[in-house]
Amino acid sequence: MKKLTEKVLAFRDERDWKQFHNPKDLALSLVLEAAEVLEIFQWKQDMGAIQNAARERKEDLADELADVFCYTLLLANDLGIDLEQALESKIEKNGVKYPAEKAKGSNKKYTEL
Amino acid sequence: MKKLTEKVLAFRDERDWKQFHNPKDLALSLVLEAAEVLEIFQWKQDMGAIQNAARERKEDLADELADVFCYTLLLANDLGIDLEQALESKIEKNGVKYPAEKAKGSNKKYTEL
Amino acid sequence: MKKLTEKVLAFRDERDWKQFHNPKDLALSLVLEAAEVLEIFQWKQDMGAIQNAARERKEDLADELADVFCYTLLLANDLGIDLEQALESKIEKNGVKYPAEKAKGSNKKYTEL
Amino acid sequence: MKKLTEKVLAFRDERDWKQFHNPKDLALSLVLEAAEVLEIFQWKQDMGAIQNAARERKEDLADELADVFCYTLLLANDLGIDLEQALESKIEKNGVKYPAEKAKGSNKKYTEL
Repeated sequence: MKKLTEKVLAFRDERDWKQFHNPKDLALSLVLEAAEVLEIFQWKQDMGAIQNAARERKEDLADELADVFCYTLLLANDLGIDLEQALESKIEKNGVKYPAEKAKGSNKKYTEL
Repeated sequence: MKKLTEKVLAFRDERDWKQFHNPKDLALSLVLEAAEVLEIFQWKQDMGAIQNAARERKEDLADELADVFCYTLLLANDLGIDLEQALESKIEKNGVKYPAEKAKGSNKKYTEL
Repeated sequence: MKKLTEKVLAFRDERDWKQFHNPKDLALSLVLEAAEVLEIFQWKQDMGAIQNAARERKEDLADELADVFCYTLLLANDLGIDLEQALESKIEKNGVKYPAEKAKGSNKKYTEL
Repeated sequence: MKKLTEKVLAFRDERDWKQFHNPKDLALSLVLEAAEVLEIFQWKQDMGAIQNAARERKEDLADELADVFCYTLLLANDLGIDLEQALESKIEKNGVKYPAEKAKGSNKKYTEL
């Protein structure tokens, strides 16, 4: 993770782009890239069509997911957030919100469990 | 990264949630979580207000970024995408789209460079 | 439409909110409200579940769609765009992109038709 | 509004697209179109740059807003929601959440007022 962050930062510094990367625009860009992932599944209604799109457009999906990951790493870096620790702490919180025995096999929100 | 993916998968398996996690709904969820990151900066106009929000709501930001990261890991896993390799390959592609000498200090899209 | 825009503007002026409503934050808010519409269908996989959500959460859907419509009217107003005319002109453009005889019964993008 | 809805429905029926327009994909498309509006303001940091983008890309903004409006009309129609009434009812609810005297000149969320 640290190495990946360093690569992304080096790319940014070579282009002197830090000046544009305020947290609001990074968050905005994160949404736009996530929307590009989602677009690949637009109008795919049944599981067959969804799986087909996943297969046929695997390279596009990899590219768009990489963009999402890139902005996630930049945001975490600029905000002083340790992403690994944040994920582990969030998994713990979600474990309390969604206890395995209650949430098992249910797609309900924790407020409805 | 592998360890983190394993933790996220273990969390999912304990709850038998794989059945809900088709790629379309994972991508949809990725967008929703990215939108929650963005919401923290809604109506923050100047850099001071943006930086304030970043500081005061650091824990919320860590939680929402963790959610984004979690769905990114799940999608990559389910789609058979190596996220590290995808990021490195995307950085290379972006290096071609945005050569350092041309893109330096510019916030233009590659189509306008 | 004009009456609705006037009501929305009156609401804003009574609260002196014009100062926060720059086009970027209005566009950002439009995305956040659209995401709230989408959230209602998260994890609903088959048509039955989608239709159930549409029925059971009709009031929430009406509220969230109203928010989307509200920001659409504000943006159009502030940007000097005639929304009715914009829609009619867009329908014409789409008619060229997607000629009825070619696009009939197809969910392909115009670039793939 | 009724006339506009009829035009949009006629466009859809000529292409036999109703079959793809389940509420989930319409909501998903609404998000994607709203994201395209937002993209126009990506990396525009100060008010001057935002206003410039608004001016220079007015036609693109009109097109993207028209797309948002189009999906809003389709969703409202398919879900049996009267959009005008939904907006008026939402303005009333917001008037309770954000009383003019309390919310005047504040960009706080109602939960923090």
